[in-house]
Amino acid sequence: MSAEFTVDVPVRFRDLDPMNHVNHAVYASYLEAGRTDYLRDVAGLADEEISFVIVTLEISYERPITKGDDPTVALSVTRLGDSSCTMDYEVRVDGDVAATAETTIVHIDPETERPSPIPDAVTQRIREYEGLEAVA
Amino acid sequence: MSAEFTVDVPVRFRDLDPMNHVNHAVYASYLEAGRTDYLRDVAGLADEEISFVIVTLEISYERPITKGDDPTVALSVTRLGDSSCTMDYEVRVDGDVAATAETTIVHIDPETERPSPIPDAVTQRIREYEGLEAVA
Amino acid sequence: MSAEFTVDVPVRFRDLDPMNHVNHAVYASYLEAGRTDYLRDVAGLADEEISFVIVTLEISYERPITKGDDPTVALSVTRLGDSSCTMDYEVRVDGDVAATAETTIVHIDPETERPSPIPDAVTQRIREYEGLEAVA
Amino acid sequence: MSAEFTVDVPVRFRDLDPMNHVNHAVYASYLEAGRTDYLRDVAGLADEEISFVIVTLEISYERPITKGDDPTVALSVTRLGDSSCTMDYEVRVDGDVAATAETTIVHIDPETERPSPIPDAVTQRIREYEGLEAVA
Repeated sequence: MSAEFTVDVPVRFRDLDPMNHVNHAVYASYLEAGRTDYLRDVAGLADEEISFVIVTLEISYERPITKGDDPTVALSVTRLGDSSCTMDYEVRVDGDVAATAETTIVHIDPETERPSPIPDAVTQRIREYEGLEAVA
Repeated sequence: MSAEFTVDVPVRFRDLDPMNHVNHAVYASYLEAGRTDYLRDVAGLADEEISFVIVTLEISYERPITKGDDPTVALSVTRLGDSSCTMDYEVRVDGDVAATAETTIVHIDPETERPSPIPDAVTQRIREYEGLEAVA
Repeated sequence: MSAEFTVDVPVRFRDLDPMNHVNHAVYASYLEAGRTDYLRDVAGLADEEISFVIVTLEISYERPITKGDDPTVALSVTRLGDSSCTMDYEVRVDGDVAATAETTIVHIDPETERPSPIPDAVTQRIREYEGLEAVA
Repeated sequence: MSAEFTVDVPVRFRDLDPMNHVNHAVYASYLEAGRTDYLRDVAGLADEEISFVIVTLEISYERPITKGDDPTVALSVTRLGDSSCTMDYEVRVDGDVAATAETTIVHIDPETERPSPIPDAVTQRIREYEGLEAVA
């Protein structure tokens, strides 16, 4: 069974742009705040062990976020490959969807900076949390 | 005929993350630096007149950027609708492609915050610059 | 009587620099997050009414902050002039002082962008909260 | 003889805040962009060798900076101690001073994270550039 993983990300004044909205690039940092917490809390990776790089990012902006809003990032792993991991996100404000997003990250060997298999223990923890079937 | 629009974006130390790479969210700010210059220089919009909001962002990260690199953002309008505008980007370092990206922005009426037609003069300037045919 | 005003500011991955510490410029954004909350909650200013500009900033960095830390910003108004307001800050992590700071902000008339007296109601609320005596 | 060290820092849209001004915290990143260039170009430190941490930052904001401005950071070392280095800055726009600032950085041993003497070669290069006398 899959439990939803959510992280609250308080809006800072510095996040706002001249339209008084959270700047669109800052959404990527909100997603990242959620993702790094997920990798620590679900996948069991210490901050200094996180050896993933992002390869794709897609965000659809549904409505602006501003100061006074309390955004929450909800995320789940939707595909787990040998060395790659795809996550889906919703950024929610007051029950509304402010943005949806998808990222793909790839596990790398820090020495070579080349893709390398995600450690089994990490894969196992994510599969259990998400209720994902192992691919034969 | 279409001339390529490019903007140099010097890397700041603050752009770097613990892997000593330009953080992935900062790429969105590099694209935005290029886009706002394009809207001013090509589309003839003064900074305070820019009434576009971003609706989609897609970035593919090809290689890291670090301090000492001199990134250039190249962009062009690939589709120009009644109220929307799609742009393609390459972030280049030393002739290599560090990232490709696409954004769609929508022109809004600042009063209602609803989509509204892009002014004819703006459409005209972009079409001429890009060598785009008017859609009948 | 003066009650201490504190705001928790969760560390985001994007706050970190290549030394894996919260970048020193980000401390200024942490202070600002505290200051804008103070102006809303104590001084009773709606976000869109905040007409202060910063004129001086001083920060002493005592120890690094990193991911996994839970910083809190404590602040108080130490001097309240006709149009200016001085605040002192401590950024705390686990009971330790990570930084101390002082800012001076000046109230401006948004039309002229010139200093203008802080509204009486605002001054009154801050004096009461801080237990500051009115200057004759 | 002292030559002035200056670095141009183009304004990005992301630097702006709801008042349409470069946010005050971003000035610290402009100073840092100048400082890291100085340490590389004058002090001869490769980016990965920079083992300084900031201990104090003071900024006086004189006038706002906005999109369309072309800020330049001018800086010089005003005091060079055994393990510490004080720098003075002017952020200039069109010949006007937009801000003045001072930082003190301390050289640390990356292993112990404790202050350690600035290498002689670095001290020598800075003294020559700045026309500073060696302290007996």
